[in-house]
Amino acid sequence: MKLARIAAALQAEVRGTSSDADITGIARLEDAGPADLSLYTGRRSLAAFRTTRAAAVCATTETAADLDRPDVTVVVVRDLRRALRTLLEEVFPVRAPATADPGVSALASVADSATVSPGASVGEYCVVRPGAFIGARTVLGPGCYVGHGTRIGEDCRIGPRVTILDGMRIGDRVVIHAGTVIGADGFGYQSDAQGHHHIPQAGTVDIGDDVDIGANVTIDRATLGRTVIGRGTKIDNLVHIAHNVTIGEHCIIVAQAGLAGSVSVGARAVIAGQAGISDHSVIGDGAVVAAQAGVIGDVPPGTVVSGFPARPHRLTMRIHAMLERMLRQRRSERP
Amino acid sequence: MKLARIAAALQAEVRGTSSDADITGIARLEDAGPADLSLYTGRRSLAAFRTTRAAAVCATTETAADLDRPDVTVVVVRDLRRALRTLLEEVFPVRAPATADPGVSALASVADSATVSPGASVGEYCVVRPGAFIGARTVLGPGCYVGHGTRIGEDCRIGPRVTILDGMRIGDRVVIHAGTVIGADGFGYQSDAQGHHHIPQAGTVDIGDDVDIGANVTIDRATLGRTVIGRGTKIDNLVHIAHNVTIGEHCIIVAQAGLAGSVSVGARAVIAGQAGISDHSVIGDGAVVAAQAGVIGDVPPGTVVSGFPARPHRLTMRIHAMLERMLRQRRSERP
Amino acid sequence: MKLARIAAALQAEVRGTSSDADITGIARLEDAGPADLSLYTGRRSLAAFRTTRAAAVCATTETAADLDRPDVTVVVVRDLRRALRTLLEEVFPVRAPATADPGVSALASVADSATVSPGASVGEYCVVRPGAFIGARTVLGPGCYVGHGTRIGEDCRIGPRVTILDGMRIGDRVVIHAGTVIGADGFGYQSDAQGHHHIPQAGTVDIGDDVDIGANVTIDRATLGRTVIGRGTKIDNLVHIAHNVTIGEHCIIVAQAGLAGSVSVGARAVIAGQAGISDHSVIGDGAVVAAQAGVIGDVPPGTVVSGFPARPHRLTMRIHAMLERMLRQRRSERP
Repeated sequence: MKLARIAAALQAEVRGTSSDADITGIARLEDAGPADLSLYTGRRSLAAFRTTRAAAVCATTETAADLDRPDVTVVVVRDLRRALRTLLEEVFPVRAPATADPGVSALASVADSATVSPGASVGEYCVVRPGAFIGARTVLGPGCYVGHGTRIGEDCRIGPRVTILDGMRIGDRVVIHAGTVIGADGFGYQSDAQGHHHIPQAGTVDIGDDVDIGANVTIDRATLGRTVIGRGTKIDNLVHIAHNVTIGEHCIIVAQAGLAGSVSVGARAVIAGQAGISDHSVIGDGAVVAAQAGVIGDVPPGTVVSGFPARPHRLTMRIHAMLERMLRQRRSERP
Repeated sequence: MKLARIAAALQAEVRGTSSDADITGIARLEDAGPADLSLYTGRRSLAAFRTTRAAAVCATTETAADLDRPDVTVVVVRDLRRALRTLLEEVFPVRAPATADPGVSALASVADSATVSPGASVGEYCVVRPGAFIGARTVLGPGCYVGHGTRIGEDCRIGPRVTILDGMRIGDRVVIHAGTVIGADGFGYQSDAQGHHHIPQAGTVDIGDDVDIGANVTIDRATLGRTVIGRGTKIDNLVHIAHNVTIGEHCIIVAQAGLAGSVSVGARAVIAGQAGISDHSVIGDGAVVAAQAGVIGDVPPGTVVSGFPARPHRLTMRIHAMLERMLRQRRSERP
Repeated sequence: MKLARIAAALQAEVRGTSSDADITGIARLEDAGPADLSLYTGRRSLAAFRTTRAAAVCATTETAADLDRPDVTVVVVRDLRRALRTLLEEVFPVRAPATADPGVSALASVADSATVSPGASVGEYCVVRPGAFIGARTVLGPGCYVGHGTRIGEDCRIGPRVTILDGMRIGDRVVIHAGTVIGADGFGYQSDAQGHHHIPQAGTVDIGDDVDIGANVTIDRATLGRTVIGRGTKIDNLVHIAHNVTIGEHCIIVAQAGLAGSVSVGARAVIAGQAGISDHSVIGDGAVVAAQAGVIGDVPPGTVVSGFPARPHRLTMRIHAMLERMLRQRRSERP
């Protein structure tokens, strides 16, 4: 495809002489060949840019200033991630993973009273229990389990080997990666001298439309009522979400974060990697919990917290700077 | 069911006029309808109480004082968690998850020399290897693997998609949630100039009676001898337990905690969420390791530790208070 | 087997009178019987040594000095881990786990265009997609998924229930434990007022020869290019490796560690348990990131970092010592 046509798809400006070059693919600076388009993400990649064999490189107005090779055409875009998305969705689309045949595999076990909607696909060795509902065009990869009365919406992509237990509700266009478990019992006990007695977990999990869930995630069912994942929220791998957690719309929950029981997270909040939120904490709209932070109280809307115990990020950074200053001072005071 | 009869089951005192009200279910304050019983857990729920439509609300002697709506009957109990457990076990029992038919599914693969005891259930696509033993009334959900010579006790509830490798021992009334792996190789290497050479892991895992294990947990087999989980211990999701760890009876191990090789934990200890214990550490009876704490030595019985490196919790809190005081002081000293 | 012959296999010196004792097994000090050989790992095990019933005990030149029981023969070795490995590999070899019959199980689903090499074994309920390649003598345990065009080398041991998605490359002699997911989509989004839009993940994962991967690990495919795990690297349970991470040869990544997008790790580095590395960080050859450390920048080769934010370990330790000193001082200054 001609570079000029790609630039048009990206609504980009071309700086250089190769507008009519034929571009056959997209690759990282390190891997690109002379017919590839690549991307420049900033100074950390300058060395890679200087030696790349790419015909052309996408950059933003700001970062394009770094690019000083006359032999490499620069495609100036407004938002590099948006450009990358357009390139991979429209210009050089990725082959859909495991383009599944519609219908129920002869090697799956689907209860008579379960509904598999038109265009849906149920993979090999799936088990779908009585009363379950699989929406139109939804794909269940091999080895999934869908419990009694669980309802999965349309155009979902689930599996392989995902477990969705009884009575769950999954919206439309939900993506759930391999190994994830939705609806295991919440970790609730009544303790006495005899030991810890499990409190039956009677609730469910409700996952909104357009939610993505990574691999080997666990989302527990509520004790009463629902554990809720709001519409458009994206969850990374190995995240733990306990019973009765409520997460708002369009949140980002990064890998290995953990949310304890009854935590409430507002809309568009970010919980970074390995962060932990103690039970019943309330995280406000648009708040950011930094990586590895340990939240043991509420976080007001729009604030950024870090460290353990989590404090406003600016305070955490000031304390660390103060400590290093003090250490230097003490060492210089020694005879 | 009449509220008076429910109160009798809870050994509770009824304060209000609705003793002969018909109660049809139990729900959270936010979700309850006019025929529901609900629970009040404390001040954080006061706003929800003020607008609830519930007919009656359970509270303790202490928290009942907060409840000032004459139209809502209060059921005063001694222990709210115990009341909740009784309600969900006896008064409005939760339908058992996936009430499995006894017997071996026609879609499972069970070796001739394996034993499936009377009343046990082996789900679709399970694999049970030679010499394995499944105790009476134990349920294996779909897609489980039970290795050579592994012995599972009576009345266990396992799966779906749980992996229990060769030579394991699982007690009676054990619950193991989906995706968990018991008996993978311990992470033991001998390193030299050529690289890291795996040390064969010849030991096993021994899980006591009444242990609960969450989803996507990993418990590794011992190098020699046994990795031991004591009777009545409860383990949450995504916990890692390394080779040769020994955990006592009635411990609580919260989500995403990690116990390194040869750690020893006494009875009734609590390891909170995302805490890490370094190898060979000894955690005493009744000790508490706070969330995200990093233990790099022994913890005496009955003590509470927090922070990294983990110190007595009081000390950790004093250090944090001192730091904030110092920071305020420095800022006020500036011209 | 005569102790003298075992000592010869270990290239060890025997101190004691039992050279012609018959040794029938190897066991921990606590578990050993009078015909067992055991190992002494240092002072922490002195109490166990004093009461062991073992006929003989392996120790190093240094630790042998602790051993003062004339009735217990001491086998003096240079490297205790090497001795243990030799004992378990050659002297008392562990039965191979699930010695699988070669060939494709009648209960597996292998596409016509997939290749299963001679001596390879494909377990029950495996799904192998078109164009996949399974190398000679490689064992896939039950319930594995191998995606379209994925290539797995020779002599690998994989599963049960491992998911390897489309287009992956796995080297020779690779071990992957149960529940692990290789090649799920990287967590990459373009965000705007409408929400978070997933960026298609067009890359792959490339796993070198002799890599070991624990249970319930997640390794994401690259956005473009490859996520790379270098030859000989060993990865523990529940580790998260994000898209476009590059890990060098012979690294050690301990349980529950997390590496964010585009992190680069040199050769022979160690990332300890629950450590987190933020995106695009570069960890140098031979660097050590301590347990629970939070790395938010580059780590030079050969350095040891700890704490959050991760600093040189010596600095972290000095800051902690200073804090405790200050706290004592303040308390003593109070009237």
